[in-house]
Amino acid sequence: MDGYNRNGDLKPMDAEQFREHAHKMVDFIADYYKTIENFPVLSQVQPGYLRNMLPDSAPNHPESLDDIFNDVQAKILPGVTHWQSPNYFAYYPSNSSIAGFLGEMLSAGLNIVGFSWITSPAATELEMIVLDWLAKLLKLPDEFLSAGQGGGVIQGTASEAVLVVLLAARDKVLRRLGKNALEKIVVYASDQTHSAIQKACQIAGIHPENCRVIKTESSTNYALSPDILCEAIAHDVAIGLVPFFLCATVGTTSSTAVDPLLALGKIAKSNGMWFHVDAAYAGSACICPEYRQYIDGVEEADSFNMNAHKWFLTNFDCSALWVKDRTALVQSLSTNPEFLKNKASQANMVVDYKDWQIPLGRRFRSLKLWMVLRLYGIENLQCYIRNHIKLAEHFEGLVAQDPRFEVVTPRIFSLVCFRLLPPRNNEDNGNKLNNDLLEAINSTGKIFISHTVLSGKYILRFAVGAPLTEERHVTAAWKVLQDEASVLLGRL
Amino acid sequence: MDGYNRNGDLKPMDAEQFREHAHKMVDFIADYYKTIENFPVLSQVQPGYLRNMLPDSAPNHPESLDDIFNDVQAKILPGVTHWQSPNYFAYYPSNSSIAGFLGEMLSAGLNIVGFSWITSPAATELEMIVLDWLAKLLKLPDEFLSAGQGGGVIQGTASEAVLVVLLAARDKVLRRLGKNALEKIVVYASDQTHSAIQKACQIAGIHPENCRVIKTESSTNYALSPDILCEAIAHDVAIGLVPFFLCATVGTTSSTAVDPLLALGKIAKSNGMWFHVDAAYAGSACICPEYRQYIDGVEEADSFNMNAHKWFLTNFDCSALWVKDRTALVQSLSTNPEFLKNKASQANMVVDYKDWQIPLGRRFRSLKLWMVLRLYGIENLQCYIRNHIKLAEHFEGLVAQDPRFEVVTPRIFSLVCFRLLPPRNNEDNGNKLNNDLLEAINSTGKIFISHTVLSGKYILRFAVGAPLTEERHVTAAWKVLQDEASVLLGRL
Repeated sequence: MDGYNRNGDLKPMDAEQFREHAHKMVDFIADYYKTIENFPVLSQVQPGYLRNMLPDSAPNHPESLDDIFNDVQAKILPGVTHWQSPNYFAYYPSNSSIAGFLGEMLSAGLNIVGFSWITSPAATELEMIVLDWLAKLLKLPDEFLSAGQGGGVIQGTASEAVLVVLLAARDKVLRRLGKNALEKIVVYASDQTHSAIQKACQIAGIHPENCRVIKTESSTNYALSPDILCEAIAHDVAIGLVPFFLCATVGTTSSTAVDPLLALGKIAKSNGMWFHVDAAYAGSACICPEYRQYIDGVEEADSFNMNAHKWFLTNFDCSALWVKDRTALVQSLSTNPEFLKNKASQANMVVDYKDWQIPLGRRFRSLKLWMVLRLYGIENLQCYIRNHIKLAEHFEGLVAQDPRFEVVTPRIFSLVCFRLLPPRNNEDNGNKLNNDLLEAINSTGKIFISHTVLSGKYILRFAVGAPLTEERHVTAAWKVLQDEASVLLGRL
Repeated sequence: MDGYNRNGDLKPMDAEQFREHAHKMVDFIADYYKTIENFPVLSQVQPGYLRNMLPDSAPNHPESLDDIFNDVQAKILPGVTHWQSPNYFAYYPSNSSIAGFLGEMLSAGLNIVGFSWITSPAATELEMIVLDWLAKLLKLPDEFLSAGQGGGVIQGTASEAVLVVLLAARDKVLRRLGKNALEKIVVYASDQTHSAIQKACQIAGIHPENCRVIKTESSTNYALSPDILCEAIAHDVAIGLVPFFLCATVGTTSSTAVDPLLALGKIAKSNGMWFHVDAAYAGSACICPEYRQYIDGVEEADSFNMNAHKWFLTNFDCSALWVKDRTALVQSLSTNPEFLKNKASQANMVVDYKDWQIPLGRRFRSLKLWMVLRLYGIENLQCYIRNHIKLAEHFEGLVAQDPRFEVVTPRIFSLVCFRLLPPRNNEDNGNKLNNDLLEAINSTGKIFISHTVLSGKYILRFAVGAPLTEERHVTAAWKVLQDEASVLLGRL
């Protein structure tokens, strides 16, 4: 029998059983995509739903793949929130694609652990090459290419990207000032910066009172003001603190605000600070010449990050990080135990990505990004981005035509921030109303959107970016929103 | 045409094109496994080999899947070190299996991002359930189960596991002593502890002079001595330092040393320290009743870690971590930005794994572990482990029969530490000889082994654990070793 040898021992990697079972899984997933619109987008299960549906312990004897498929269908899928549904408009997208999926398959099939060059030279070298490709596509300055002192690396997430550069910057300044200066070093970001910066500061031991969260205003469309930053820095310097890290964002999570990189970068440079640019979401758009302007000023950055797993058809996880000074990363993150020593590493002939990241082990991370770039090509990828932005424009237009709603911030990329206006003389400022609308809409299972708060206002976010989304889905989503709004307003 | 719509726009998730292409990839990978023994196990390419084989930039227009397959075959596979080869005996294994691979496929197919419960309840709940299953299989104390104050979580790697618990422990002690006490808090581990602890300390800002690396001896088979630990702690306390974290290992990376958990745990407890047990490699063996003894004393631990991606047939990455006090993790790692708030989280009705790990985003991590447990069942998994240990015994026996070699440390699990003895009157103490032997063997491409240094001796490590390895591979590997040794000794 396939899967066992003559003694009845398990053969867990029998090639023919692999073939048979993996083909079945391909069909299962293809069928999932065919029927994905039949599921409620946001899972409607209650907390704890799964516990009683599954046994208390692992089985002693093997179960069949059909048992698994039945359980996935009956027990797992009802608890899935369908990020790949064309009716998914929450948070930011997490793109899957055929190319990304094939890359995942090959990576899982080879199942190498590429911590050092020697453990699979192709894994390290392809990553260097493909991140050079992507850097060129984004027209990043040459200092970010691997040919010089810098280079790119794939992290799991933007949180890890900002953490590793924060650690590099922390250790750089502490090497100069001594490690007891930890209590004096200060991080700057805006109140729109992703919470990842706060978490990175917690991990790195930056004192919470030294994390400056600079307030932004609707007047600047929630961009970080260079003037206010300068004031904050001057104040800190005056009281003996040491500014060392600035995080700017291109396309904030709440509203796609774009911080003015050039002005901020010059401030960072003149104060000897590390300047990190988080373009996790909007970076993908910058492969289109007409959107490249939003990262103008990236020449001033020490590090730049974009998530290929968000809006670039590369399955989660794949967060591309570039640095100009790879030595700074390596100084913070390297270890060199005897059991990993090898000729190529000891001779400094190679990059060992273990020293550019938090974990030791790492997958063959670049395969899927390489396949996305090759199987689709640059022009298709640009069209893909432009199409989503056009769909967001379409949605924005629909909102603008309905006087019961307002678009809250100017739309730049594929996110529309809007809200239902509270009726005149209503005691609610609209926050409860919009929260109720959000809950009502997401409870339908027809679409899934999320929210934020800007200047105290509860805002609905409509983020276009799922690979299957077409104009008809956006139009239908707006109908759901209008209908639920009518119900809610009718009750007031 | 599949893959494009009527306007010629890309359809990156067309279900029928997905089906067609993914079936091709299944066959490609199945064929890889059929022919895996034809490749040199350790890649024999030179640094920089790939750069000139690939273009300088991404293509403007799509390339075909056949182009990709051709390039993988001709350019990528020569640069792959084949961790799944039956002749792979280096480091520790990184198991793939059909079940693990199917889990990867499904996870990549659904492509959800499970940071909060709401973003796919099934992802959080299945992980809780499956880690409870595995905890029961390992007979971990009930405090590690999710029903109480503890619970399990899947990290990417053991490095991340030790980092998150170190952060939890750091913040716990600093909440008591104030954050300026950072310079006073001390971490203890042995000189056999994985370098991940050193890296975690660097990241967490623990002062390097406060990282106690306690020397081990061959007389205790490189286990951490409770007496020496006690002395070190007493000395530190006497000079005003604060011991706060102890890392013990069951199955060290160099030689599978087993630290005495019970005695160490009691010392940690009586000094108010966090006690972490790293069983990254050997934890898998502890599902067999006859090996469970090696984690006796785990009742004293605050956290316990084993890597299902090493020797438990679950494709990389999958590192299972359990804690007794999940609140400590959450206190260190949680953030709660407005844009992620939701009813279930705000009401504290659910676990949000984003607060148990470094990154925000996370895959549907438990699917592959669930499939491994179900498709193989406990008895097969136990046989799988026992078979590898038997093969290691077989290899140990072969080494013992050849008087030119010695087995250096007692074999406990599936790793054999051995060396070629230097000829009498030879000026080399054997270190160069064994390094030469390692290089010679790995250059053949027939097998891949790695090394370590114990008490100044250069040691060869033969780690059995690849899913395809059978007795004939072990026997043939020994022949390669003997032949190369004969060549080397003949030259002296």
